[in-house]
Amino acid sequence: MGELRGRFISLEGGEGVGKSSNIAFIVDWLTDAGIPFIQTREPGGTPLAEEVRELLLRPRDEGMTELSELLLVFAARAQHLHTKIEPALAAGTWVLCDRFTDATFAYQGYGRGLSRDTIEQLQQMVQGARRPDLTLLLDAPVEVGMARAGERGELDRFEQEQHSFFERVRAGYLALAEADPQRFSIIDASQPLADVQRDIGQVLQRFVDGSGASA
Amino acid sequence: MGELRGRFISLEGGEGVGKSSNIAFIVDWLTDAGIPFIQTREPGGTPLAEEVRELLLRPRDEGMTELSELLLVFAARAQHLHTKIEPALAAGTWVLCDRFTDATFAYQGYGRGLSRDTIEQLQQMVQGARRPDLTLLLDAPVEVGMARAGERGELDRFEQEQHSFFERVRAGYLALAEADPQRFSIIDASQPLADVQRDIGQVLQRFVDGSGASA
Ligand SMILES: Nc1ncnc2c1ncn2[C@@H]1O[C@H](COP(=O)(O)OP(=O)(O)OP(=O)(O)O)[C@@H](O)[C@H]1O
Ligand SMILES: Nc1ncnc2c1ncn2[C@@H]1O[C@H](COP(=O)(O)OP(=O)(O)OP(=O)(O)O)[C@@H](O)[C@H]1O
Ligand SMILES: [Mg+2]
Ligand SMILES: [Mg+2]
Repeated sequence: MGELRGRFISLEGGEGVGKSSNIAFIVDWLTDAGIPFIQTREPGGTPLAEEVRELLLRPRDEGMTELSELLLVFAARAQHLHTKIEPALAAGTWVLCDRFTDATFAYQGYGRGLSRDTIEQLQQMVQGARRPDLTLLLDAPVEVGMARAGERGELDRFEQEQHSFFERVRAGYLALAEADPQRFSIIDASQPLADVQRDIGQVLQRFVDGSGASA
Repeated sequence: MGELRGRFISLEGGEGVGKSSNIAFIVDWLTDAGIPFIQTREPGGTPLAEEVRELLLRPRDEGMTELSELLLVFAARAQHLHTKIEPALAAGTWVLCDRFTDATFAYQGYGRGLSRDTIEQLQQMVQGARRPDLTLLLDAPVEVGMARAGERGELDRFEQEQHSFFERVRAGYLALAEADPQRFSIIDASQPLADVQRDIGQVLQRFVDGSGASA
Protein backbone atom coordinates (compact mmCIF):
# COMPACT_ATOMS: atom_id res chain seq x y z
CA MET A 1 0.00 0.00 0.00
CA GLY A 2 2.98 2.36 0.06
CA GLU A 3 3.52 4.85 2.89
CA LEU A 4 0.76 6.44 4.91
CA ARG A 5 0.89 10.14 4.05
CA GLY A 6 -1.40 11.07 1.16
CA ARG A 7 -0.12 13.05 -1.83
CA PHE A 8 -1.51 16.40 -2.84
CA ILE A 9 -2.00 16.96 -6.58
CA SER A 10 -3.28 20.27 -7.96
CA LEU A 11 -4.45 21.05 -11.46
CA GLU A 12 -3.89 24.58 -12.76
CA GLY A 13 -4.38 26.65 -15.87
CA GLY A 14 -6.41 29.49 -17.34
CA GLU A 15 -10.06 29.55 -18.33
CA GLY A 16 -11.25 26.62 -20.42
CA VAL A 17 -7.89 24.89 -20.89
CA GLY A 18 -9.45 21.62 -19.77
CA LYS A 19 -8.91 21.27 -16.01
CA SER A 20 -12.33 19.82 -15.27
CA SER A 21 -12.22 17.51 -18.32
CA ASN A 22 -8.84 16.12 -17.33
CA ILE A 23 -9.72 15.76 -13.65
CA ALA A 24 -12.20 13.11 -14.80
CA PHE A 25 -9.29 11.30 -16.49
CA ILE A 26 -7.11 11.55 -13.38
CA VAL A 27 -9.95 10.24 -11.23
CA ASP A 28 -10.12 7.13 -13.44
CA TRP A 29 -6.34 6.77 -13.42
CA LEU A 30 -6.05 6.94 -9.60
CA THR A 31 -8.98 4.58 -9.22
CA ASP A 32 -7.37 2.02 -11.58
CA ALA A 33 -4.13 2.40 -9.64
CA GLY A 34 -5.93 1.53 -6.40
CA ILE A 35 -4.94 4.81 -4.77
CA PRO A 36 -7.42 6.19 -2.21
CA PHE A 37 -8.16 9.84 -2.99
CA ILE A 38 -10.68 12.66 -2.74
CA GLN A 39 -11.48 15.11 -5.51
CA THR A 40 -12.07 18.75 -4.61
CA ARG A 41 -11.68 22.28 -5.94
CA GLU A 42 -10.85 25.89 -5.10
CA PRO A 43 -12.18 28.30 -4.29
CA GLY A 44 -14.61 26.00 -2.49
CA GLY A 45 -14.48 22.40 -1.33
CA THR A 46 -16.62 22.80 1.83
CA PRO A 47 -20.13 24.30 2.19
CA LEU A 48 -18.76 27.53 3.72
CA ALA A 49 -15.92 27.79 1.21
CA GLU A 50 -18.39 27.23 -1.65
CA GLU A 51 -20.43 30.16 -0.31
CA VAL A 52 -17.29 32.29 -0.45
CA ARG A 53 -16.70 31.02 -4.02
CA GLU A 54 -20.15 32.25 -4.94
CA LEU A 55 -19.31 35.70 -3.50
CA LEU A 56 -16.09 35.73 -5.54
CA LEU A 57 -17.60 34.67 -8.87
CA ARG A 58 -20.93 36.49 -8.94
CA PRO A 59 -20.82 39.68 -11.02
CA ARG A 60 -22.08 42.71 -9.06
CA ASP A 61 -22.41 46.47 -9.53
CA GLU A 62 -20.08 47.16 -6.59
CA GLY A 63 -16.50 46.72 -7.76
CA MET A 64 -14.58 44.30 -5.54
CA THR A 65 -11.41 45.73 -3.99
CA GLU A 66 -8.40 43.59 -5.05
CA LEU A 67 -7.33 43.03 -1.47
CA SER A 68 -10.85 42.00 -0.47
CA GLU A 69 -10.82 39.43 -3.28
CA LEU A 70 -7.46 38.10 -2.11
CA LEU A 71 -8.61 37.80 1.52
CA LEU A 72 -11.81 36.01 0.48
CA VAL A 73 -9.74 33.52 -1.52
CA PHE A 74 -7.57 32.77 1.51
CA ALA A 75 -10.57 32.68 3.89
CA ALA A 76 -12.07 29.91 1.73
CA ARG A 77 -8.67 28.21 1.54
CA ALA A 78 -8.15 28.23 5.33
CA GLN A 79 -11.49 26.48 5.79
CA HIS A 80 -10.86 23.99 2.96
CA LEU A 81 -7.32 23.18 4.03
CA HIS A 82 -7.99 22.76 7.74
CA THR A 83 -11.27 20.87 7.54
CA LYS A 84 -10.79 18.75 4.41
CA ILE A 85 -7.34 18.66 2.77
CA GLU A 86 -5.12 18.27 5.84
CA PRO A 87 -7.33 15.58 7.48
CA ALA A 88 -7.36 13.61 4.21
CA LEU A 89 -3.58 13.76 3.75
CA ALA A 90 -3.05 12.79 7.40
CA ALA A 91 -5.27 9.73 6.87
CA GLY A 92 -3.20 8.64 3.85
CA THR A 93 -5.79 9.76 1.33
CA TRP A 94 -4.55 11.56 -1.77
CA VAL A 95 -6.07 14.90 -2.63
CA LEU A 96 -6.82 15.94 -6.20
CA CYS A 97 -7.66 19.63 -6.34
CA ASP A 98 -8.92 21.76 -9.27
CA ARG A 99 -6.83 24.91 -8.63
CA PHE A 100 -4.91 25.86 -5.47
CA THR A 101 -2.60 28.71 -4.40
CA ASP A 102 -0.77 28.92 -7.74
CA ALA A 103 -4.08 30.24 -9.09
CA THR A 104 -3.92 33.01 -6.48
CA PHE A 105 -0.43 34.03 -7.58
CA ALA A 106 -1.53 33.87 -11.23
CA TYR A 107 -4.93 35.61 -10.98
CA GLN A 108 -4.65 37.96 -7.98
CA GLY A 109 -0.90 38.48 -8.36
CA TYR A 110 -0.01 38.55 -12.07
CA GLY A 111 -3.59 39.25 -13.14
CA ARG A 112 -4.74 41.90 -10.64
CA GLY A 113 -1.32 43.22 -9.73
CA LEU A 114 -1.27 42.44 -6.00
CA SER A 115 2.28 42.05 -4.73
CA ARG A 116 3.91 38.66 -4.41
CA ASP A 117 4.97 39.62 -0.90
CA THR A 118 1.36 40.15 0.23
CA ILE A 119 0.25 36.82 -1.23
CA GLU A 120 3.23 35.04 0.31
CA GLN A 121 2.37 36.46 3.75
CA LEU A 122 -1.12 35.01 3.50
CA GLN A 123 0.20 31.74 2.11
CA GLN A 124 2.47 31.44 5.15
CA MET A 125 -0.35 32.38 7.55
CA VAL A 126 -2.85 29.89 6.11
CA GLN A 127 -0.68 27.03 4.82
CA GLY A 128 2.58 27.15 6.72
CA ALA A 129 4.81 24.84 4.67
CA ARG A 130 1.95 23.01 2.95
CA ARG A 131 2.29 22.94 -0.86
CA PRO A 132 0.97 20.51 -3.48
CA ASP A 133 3.36 17.63 -4.10
CA LEU A 134 2.60 17.71 -7.82
CA THR A 135 1.07 20.49 -9.88
CA LEU A 136 -0.12 19.84 -13.43
CA LEU A 137 -0.18 23.09 -15.36
CA LEU A 138 -2.44 22.85 -18.40
CA ASP A 139 -1.07 25.46 -20.74
CA ALA A 140 -2.64 26.69 -23.97
CA PRO A 141 -2.86 30.00 -25.81
CA VAL A 142 -5.52 32.24 -24.28
CA GLU A 143 -7.61 32.11 -27.47
CA VAL A 144 -7.77 28.31 -27.33
CA GLY A 145 -9.12 28.27 -23.77
CA MET A 146 -11.51 31.14 -24.47
CA ALA A 147 -12.89 29.43 -27.55
CA ARG A 148 -13.43 26.20 -25.58
CA ALA A 149 -15.01 28.00 -22.59
CA GLY A 150 -17.05 30.24 -24.88
CA GLU A 151 -19.52 27.44 -25.45
CA ARG A 152 -20.88 27.97 -21.95
CA GLY A 153 -23.61 30.30 -20.64
CA GLU A 154 -23.25 33.51 -18.60
CA LEU A 155 -19.77 34.70 -17.74
CA ASP A 156 -18.64 34.87 -14.10
CA ARG A 157 -16.74 37.84 -12.62
CA PHE A 158 -13.36 36.49 -13.78
CA GLU A 159 -14.50 35.32 -17.21
CA GLN A 160 -15.65 38.91 -17.85
CA GLU A 161 -12.06 40.17 -17.70
CA GLN A 162 -10.12 41.62 -20.64
CA HIS A 163 -7.90 39.55 -22.91
CA SER A 164 -4.79 41.21 -21.44
CA PHE A 165 -5.77 39.95 -17.98
CA PHE A 166 -5.73 36.35 -19.21
CA GLU A 167 -2.41 36.87 -20.98
CA ARG A 168 -0.92 38.02 -17.66
CA VAL A 169 -2.44 35.00 -15.93
CA ARG A 170 -0.96 32.61 -18.50
CA ALA A 171 2.48 34.24 -18.36
CA GLY A 172 2.25 34.19 -14.55
CA TYR A 173 1.53 30.47 -14.45
CA LEU A 174 4.49 29.79 -16.75
CA ALA A 175 6.77 31.91 -14.56
CA LEU A 176 5.60 30.01 -11.46
CA ALA A 177 6.28 26.69 -13.18
CA GLU A 178 9.72 27.79 -14.29
CA ALA A 179 10.58 28.83 -10.72
CA ASP A 180 9.61 25.43 -9.29
CA PRO A 181 10.26 22.74 -11.94
CA GLN A 182 10.47 20.07 -9.25
CA ARG A 183 6.79 20.42 -8.37
CA PHE A 184 5.30 21.55 -11.70
CA SER A 185 4.70 19.59 -14.89
CA ILE A 186 3.63 21.71 -17.83
CA ILE A 187 1.17 19.95 -20.11
CA ASP A 188 0.52 21.21 -23.65
CA ALA A 189 -3.26 21.58 -23.39
CA SER A 190 -3.68 22.83 -26.94
CA GLN A 191 -3.35 19.23 -28.16
CA PRO A 192 -6.34 16.96 -28.80
CA LEU A 193 -7.77 15.65 -25.52
CA ALA A 194 -6.38 12.12 -26.04
CA ASP A 195 -2.83 13.49 -26.32
CA VAL A 196 -3.28 15.70 -23.25
CA GLN A 197 -4.43 12.65 -21.33
CA ARG A 198 -1.51 10.54 -22.56
CA ASP A 199 0.89 13.22 -21.29
CA ILE A 200 -0.89 13.48 -17.95
CA GLY A 201 -0.83 9.69 -17.58
CA GLN A 202 2.92 9.65 -18.09
CA VAL A 203 3.48 12.36 -15.49
CA LEU A 204 1.27 10.53 -13.00
CA GLN A 205 3.08 7.25 -13.58
CA ARG A 206 6.48 8.87 -12.97
CA PHE A 207 5.13 10.63 -9.88
CA VAL A 208 3.67 7.45 -8.41
CA ASP A 209 6.86 5.48 -9.17
CA GLY A 210 8.91 8.18 -7.49
CA SER A 211 6.69 8.57 -4.45
CA GLY A 212 6.75 4.95 -3.38
CA ALA A 213 2.97 4.54 -3.58
CA SER A 214 1.48 1.41 -5.09
CA ALA A 215 0.27 1.58 -8.68
CA MET B 1 -15.68 74.65 9.28
CA GLY B 2 -12.44 73.34 10.80
CA GLU B 3 -9.89 71.52 8.68
CA LEU B 4 -10.69 69.34 5.71
CA ARG B 5 -9.81 65.82 6.84
CA GLY B 6 -12.74 63.97 8.41
CA ARG B 7 -12.41 62.30 11.80
CA PHE B 8 -12.96 58.60 12.33
CA ILE B 9 -14.93 57.61 15.44
CA SER B 10 -15.53 53.97 16.35
CA LEU B 11 -17.87 52.57 18.96
CA GLU B 12 -16.86 49.33 20.67
CA GLY B 13 -18.06 46.97 23.35
CA GLY B 14 -19.48 43.50 23.99
CA GLU B 15 -22.92 42.17 23.14
CA GLY B 16 -25.84 44.37 24.18
CA VAL B 17 -23.87 47.07 25.99
CA GLY B 18 -25.69 49.73 23.99
CA LYS B 19 -23.60 50.51 20.91
CA SER B 20 -26.54 50.83 18.53
CA SER B 21 -28.63 52.80 21.06
CA ASN B 22 -25.84 55.29 21.63
CA ILE B 23 -24.98 55.65 17.97
CA ALA B 24 -28.41 57.22 17.60
CA PHE B 25 -27.41 59.74 20.28
CA ILE B 26 -24.08 60.47 18.59
CA VAL B 27 -25.84 60.95 15.25
CA ASP B 28 -28.02 63.65 16.86
CA TRP B 29 -25.02 65.21 18.56
CA LEU B 30 -22.94 65.47 15.36
CA THR B 31 -25.95 66.76 13.45
CA ASP B 32 -26.56 69.49 16.06
CA ALA B 33 -22.86 70.36 15.91
CA GLY B 34 -23.12 70.84 12.14
CA ILE B 35 -20.45 68.23 11.44
CA PRO B 36 -20.85 66.32 8.14
CA PHE B 37 -20.64 62.57 8.79
CA ILE B 38 -21.67 59.12 7.64
CA GLN B 39 -22.83 56.32 9.92
CA THR B 40 -21.70 52.78 9.18
CA ARG B 41 -20.87 49.46 10.84
CA GLU B 42 -18.62 46.43 10.79
CA PRO B 43 -18.54 43.78 9.68
CA GLY B 44 -20.44 45.31 6.79
CA GLY B 45 -20.99 48.82 5.51
CA THR B 46 -21.12 48.01 1.77
CA PRO B 47 -23.36 45.48 -0.05
CA LEU B 48 -20.47 43.02 -0.50
CA ALA B 49 -19.21 43.50 3.07
CA GLU B 50 -22.76 42.98 4.38
CA GLU B 51 -22.85 39.66 2.50
CA VAL B 52 -19.64 38.68 4.26
CA ARG B 53 -21.23 39.79 7.57
CA GLU B 54 -24.08 37.42 6.90
CA LEU B 55 -21.60 34.56 6.29
CA LEU B 56 -19.89 35.42 9.58
CA LEU B 57 -23.02 35.65 11.73
CA ARG B 58 -25.20 32.83 10.39
CA PRO B 59 -25.03 29.70 12.55
CA ARG B 60 -24.17 26.58 10.50
CA ASP B 61 -23.43 22.91 11.07
CA GLU B 62 -19.92 23.25 9.63
CA GLY B 63 -17.64 24.72 12.29
CA MET B 64 -15.83 27.82 10.99
CA THR B 65 -12.03 27.65 11.24
CA GLU B 66 -10.78 30.57 13.41
CA LEU B 67 -8.41 31.75 10.70
CA SER B 68 -11.16 31.65 8.09
CA GLU B 69 -13.31 33.84 10.36
CA LEU B 70 -10.43 36.29 10.77
CA LEU B 71 -9.78 36.50 7.03
CA LEU B 72 -13.48 37.04 6.29
CA VAL B 73 -13.52 39.91 8.81
CA PHE B 74 -10.58 41.58 7.08
CA ALA B 75 -11.97 40.87 3.60
CA ALA B 76 -15.11 42.81 4.57
CA ARG B 77 -12.95 45.52 6.16
CA ALA B 78 -10.76 45.98 3.08
CA GLN B 79 -13.87 46.56 0.96
CA HIS B 80 -15.49 48.87 3.53
CA LEU B 81 -12.34 50.88 4.15
CA HIS B 82 -11.28 51.35 0.54
CA THR B 83 -14.69 52.05 -0.97
CA LYS B 84 -16.46 53.93 1.84
CA ILE B 85 -14.41 55.03 4.87
CA GLU B 86 -11.28 56.38 3.15
CA PRO B 87 -13.19 58.30 0.46
CA ALA B 88 -15.40 59.89 3.17
CA LEU B 89 -12.46 60.94 5.33
CA ALA B 90 -10.64 62.32 2.29
CA ALA B 91 -13.70 64.43 1.47
CA GLY B 92 -13.77 65.90 4.98
CA THR B 93 -16.72 63.78 6.10
CA TRP B 94 -16.54 62.25 9.56
CA VAL B 95 -17.10 58.51 9.89
CA LEU B 96 -19.04 57.02 12.78
CA CYS B 97 -18.59 53.25 12.83
CA ASP B 98 -20.31 50.62 15.01
CA ARG B 99 -17.25 48.37 15.70
CA PHE B 100 -13.90 48.35 13.88
CA THR B 101 -10.57 46.53 14.26
CA ASP B 102 -10.54 46.65 18.06
CA ALA B 103 -13.47 44.22 17.84
CA THR B 104 -11.21 41.88 15.85
CA PHE B 105 -8.51 41.97 18.52
CA ALA B 106 -11.19 41.48 21.22
CA TYR B 107 -13.29 38.74 19.55
CA GLN B 108 -10.90 36.86 17.24
CA GLY B 109 -7.82 37.57 19.39
CA TYR B 110 -8.80 37.49 23.08
CA GLY B 111 -12.03 35.55 22.41
CA ARG B 112 -10.92 32.88 19.89
CA GLY B 113 -7.25 32.85 20.80
CA LEU B 114 -5.73 33.91 17.47
CA SER B 115 -2.34 35.54 17.96
CA ARG B 116 -1.98 39.29 18.15
CA ASP B 117 0.84 39.02 15.63
CA THR B 118 -1.41 37.43 13.00
CA ILE B 119 -4.09 40.10 13.48
CA GLU B 120 -1.50 42.88 13.36
CA GLN B 121 -0.14 41.53 10.07
CA LEU B 122 -3.61 41.74 8.52
CA GLN B 123 -4.24 45.14 10.09
CA GLN B 124 -1.06 46.41 8.43
CA MET B 125 -1.94 44.80 5.09
CA VAL B 126 -5.48 46.21 4.99
CA GLN B 127 -5.22 49.48 6.88
CA GLY B 128 -1.62 50.59 6.76
CA ALA B 129 -1.49 53.35 9.39
CA ARG B 130 -5.26 53.99 9.40
CA ARG B 131 -6.79 53.85 12.92
CA PRO B 132 -9.88 55.49 14.40
CA ASP B 133 -9.14 58.94 15.81
CA LEU B 134 -11.47 58.32 18.74
CA THR B 135 -12.79 55.02 20.09
CA LEU B 136 -15.63 54.98 22.61
CA LEU B 137 -15.51 51.72 24.54
CA LEU B 138 -18.86 50.98 26.16
CA ASP B 139 -17.98 48.78 29.09
CA ALA B 140 -20.38 46.85 31.31
CA PRO B 141 -20.33 43.51 33.12
CA VAL B 142 -21.07 40.65 30.73
CA GLU B 143 -24.33 39.83 32.56
CA VAL B 144 -25.64 43.36 32.03
CA GLY B 145 -25.10 43.25 28.26
CA MET B 146 -26.46 39.71 28.01
CA ALA B 147 -29.59 40.64 29.92
CA ARG B 148 -30.17 43.63 27.63
CA ALA B 149 -29.46 41.68 24.45
CA GLY B 150 -31.46 38.69 25.72
CA GLU B 151 -34.70 40.46 24.84
CA ARG B 152 -34.01 39.79 21.16
CA GLY B 153 -34.88 36.81 18.94
CA GLU B 154 -32.60 34.07 17.59
CA LEU B 155 -28.93 34.14 18.55
CA ASP B 156 -26.25 34.67 15.89
CA ARG B 157 -23.03 32.63 15.71
CA PHE B 158 -21.23 34.90 18.19
CA GLU B 159 -24.15 35.34 20.59
CA GLN B 160 -24.22 31.54 20.92
CA GLU B 161 -20.78 31.55 22.56
CA GLN B 162 -20.09 30.60 26.20
CA HIS B 163 -20.01 33.10 29.05
CA SER B 164 -16.23 32.66 29.35
CA PHE B 165 -15.83 33.82 25.72
CA PHE B 166 -17.54 37.11 26.51
CA GLU B 167 -15.47 37.58 29.66
CA ARG B 168 -12.33 37.24 27.53
CA VAL B 169 -13.74 39.74 25.03
CA ARG B 170 -14.51 42.27 27.78
CA ALA B 171 -11.09 41.87 29.41
CA GLY B 172 -9.52 42.16 25.95
CA TYR B 173 -11.28 45.41 25.19
CA LEU B 174 -10.14 46.85 28.54
CA ALA B 175 -6.56 45.78 27.85
CA LEU B 176 -6.68 47.42 24.41
CA ALA B 177 -8.01 50.65 25.96
CA GLU B 178 -5.33 50.63 28.62
CA ALA B 179 -2.64 50.23 25.99
CA ASP B 180 -3.88 53.22 23.98
CA PRO B 181 -5.47 55.77 26.38
CA GLN B 182 -4.89 58.55 23.86
CA ARG B 183 -7.40 57.08 21.42
CA PHE B 184 -9.81 55.26 23.76
CA SER B 185 -12.42 56.65 26.11
CA ILE B 186 -14.00 54.07 28.39
CA ILE B 187 -17.66 54.75 29.12
CA ASP B 188 -19.43 53.05 32.02
CA ALA B 189 -22.29 51.51 30.08
CA SER B 190 -23.89 49.88 33.12
CA GLN B 191 -25.37 53.27 34.03
CA PRO B 192 -28.85 54.38 33.00
CA LEU B 193 -28.92 55.42 29.35
CA ALA B 194 -29.18 59.15 30.14
CA ASP B 195 -25.95 58.99 32.16
CA VAL B 196 -24.18 57.02 29.44
CA GLN B 197 -25.20 59.68 26.95
CA ARG B 198 -24.06 62.52 29.21
CA ASP B 199 -20.63 60.89 29.45
CA ILE B 200 -20.46 60.33 25.67
CA GLY B 201 -21.49 63.94 25.06
CA GLN B 202 -18.64 65.18 27.26
CA VAL B 203 -16.09 63.02 25.46
CA LEU B 204 -17.34 64.21 22.07
CA GLN B 205 -17.19 67.87 23.15
CA ARG B 206 -13.59 67.49 24.34
CA PHE B 207 -12.70 65.65 21.13
CA VAL B 208 -14.23 68.29 18.89
CA ASP B 209 -12.61 71.13 20.88
CA GLY B 210 -9.25 69.38 20.61
CA SER B 211 -9.55 68.51 16.93
CA GLY B 212 -10.21 72.02 15.70
CA ALA B 213 -13.55 71.16 14.09
CA SER B 214 -16.50 73.50 14.51
CA ALA B 215 -19.08 72.60 17.19
N1 LIG C 1 -7.80 19.08 -25.34
C1 LIG C 1 -9.03 19.51 -25.66
N2 LIG C 1 -9.38 19.65 -26.95
C2 LIG C 1 -10.59 20.13 -27.29
N3 LIG C 1 -11.54 20.48 -26.42
C3 LIG C 1 -11.25 20.36 -25.11
C4 LIG C 1 -9.99 19.88 -24.67
N4 LIG C 1 -9.99 19.88 -23.30
C5 LIG C 1 -11.20 20.34 -22.92
N5 LIG C 1 -11.96 20.64 -24.00
C6 LIG C 1 -13.32 21.20 -23.99
O1 LIG C 1 -13.17 22.57 -23.62
C7 LIG C 1 -14.22 22.99 -22.78
C8 LIG C 1 -13.63 23.51 -21.47
O2 LIG C 1 -13.03 22.43 -20.74
P1 LIG C 1 -13.04 22.38 -19.17
O3 LIG C 1 -14.39 22.78 -18.63
O4 LIG C 1 -12.50 21.06 -18.76
O5 LIG C 1 -12.00 23.55 -18.85
P2 LIG C 1 -11.59 24.16 -17.44
O6 LIG C 1 -10.15 24.39 -17.50
O7 LIG C 1 -12.12 23.31 -16.36
O8 LIG C 1 -12.40 25.52 -17.49
P3 LIG C 1 -12.65 26.53 -16.25
O9 LIG C 1 -11.39 27.31 -16.11
O10 LIG C 1 -13.79 27.39 -16.69
O11 LIG C 1 -12.99 25.68 -15.06
C9 LIG C 1 -15.11 21.77 -22.59
O12 LIG C 1 -16.18 21.87 -23.50
C10 LIG C 1 -14.22 20.61 -22.92
O13 LIG C 1 -14.92 19.51 -23.43
N1 LIG D 1 -27.75 52.19 29.48
C1 LIG D 1 -28.77 51.35 29.23
N2 LIG D 1 -29.63 50.98 30.21
C2 LIG D 1 -30.64 50.12 29.96
N3 LIG D 1 -30.88 49.56 28.76
C3 LIG D 1 -30.06 49.88 27.76
C4 LIG D 1 -28.97 50.78 27.92
N4 LIG D 1 -28.32 50.90 26.73
C5 LIG D 1 -28.99 50.11 25.85
N5 LIG D 1 -30.04 49.50 26.47
C6 LIG D 1 -30.95 48.50 25.88
O1 LIG D 1 -30.21 47.30 25.75
C7 LIG D 1 -30.57 46.64 24.54
C8 LIG D 1 -29.28 46.42 23.72
O2 LIG D 1 -28.82 47.70 23.26
P1 LIG D 1 -28.10 47.87 21.85
O3 LIG D 1 -28.80 47.07 20.81
O4 LIG D 1 -27.90 49.31 21.65
O5 LIG D 1 -26.71 47.15 22.20
P2 LIG D 1 -25.53 46.81 21.18
O6 LIG D 1 -24.27 47.04 21.95
O7 LIG D 1 -25.70 47.51 19.90
O8 LIG D 1 -25.77 45.25 20.96
P3 LIG D 1 -25.05 44.30 19.86
O9 LIG D 1 -23.70 44.00 20.40
O10 LIG D 1 -25.91 43.10 19.81
O11 LIG D 1 -25.03 45.12 18.59
C9 LIG D 1 -31.59 47.49 23.85
O12 LIG D 1 -32.87 46.97 24.15
C10 LIG D 1 -31.39 48.87 24.48
O13 LIG D 1 -32.60 49.61 24.50
MG1 LIG E 1 -13.29 23.80 -14.65
MG1 LIG F 1 -25.75 46.83 17.90
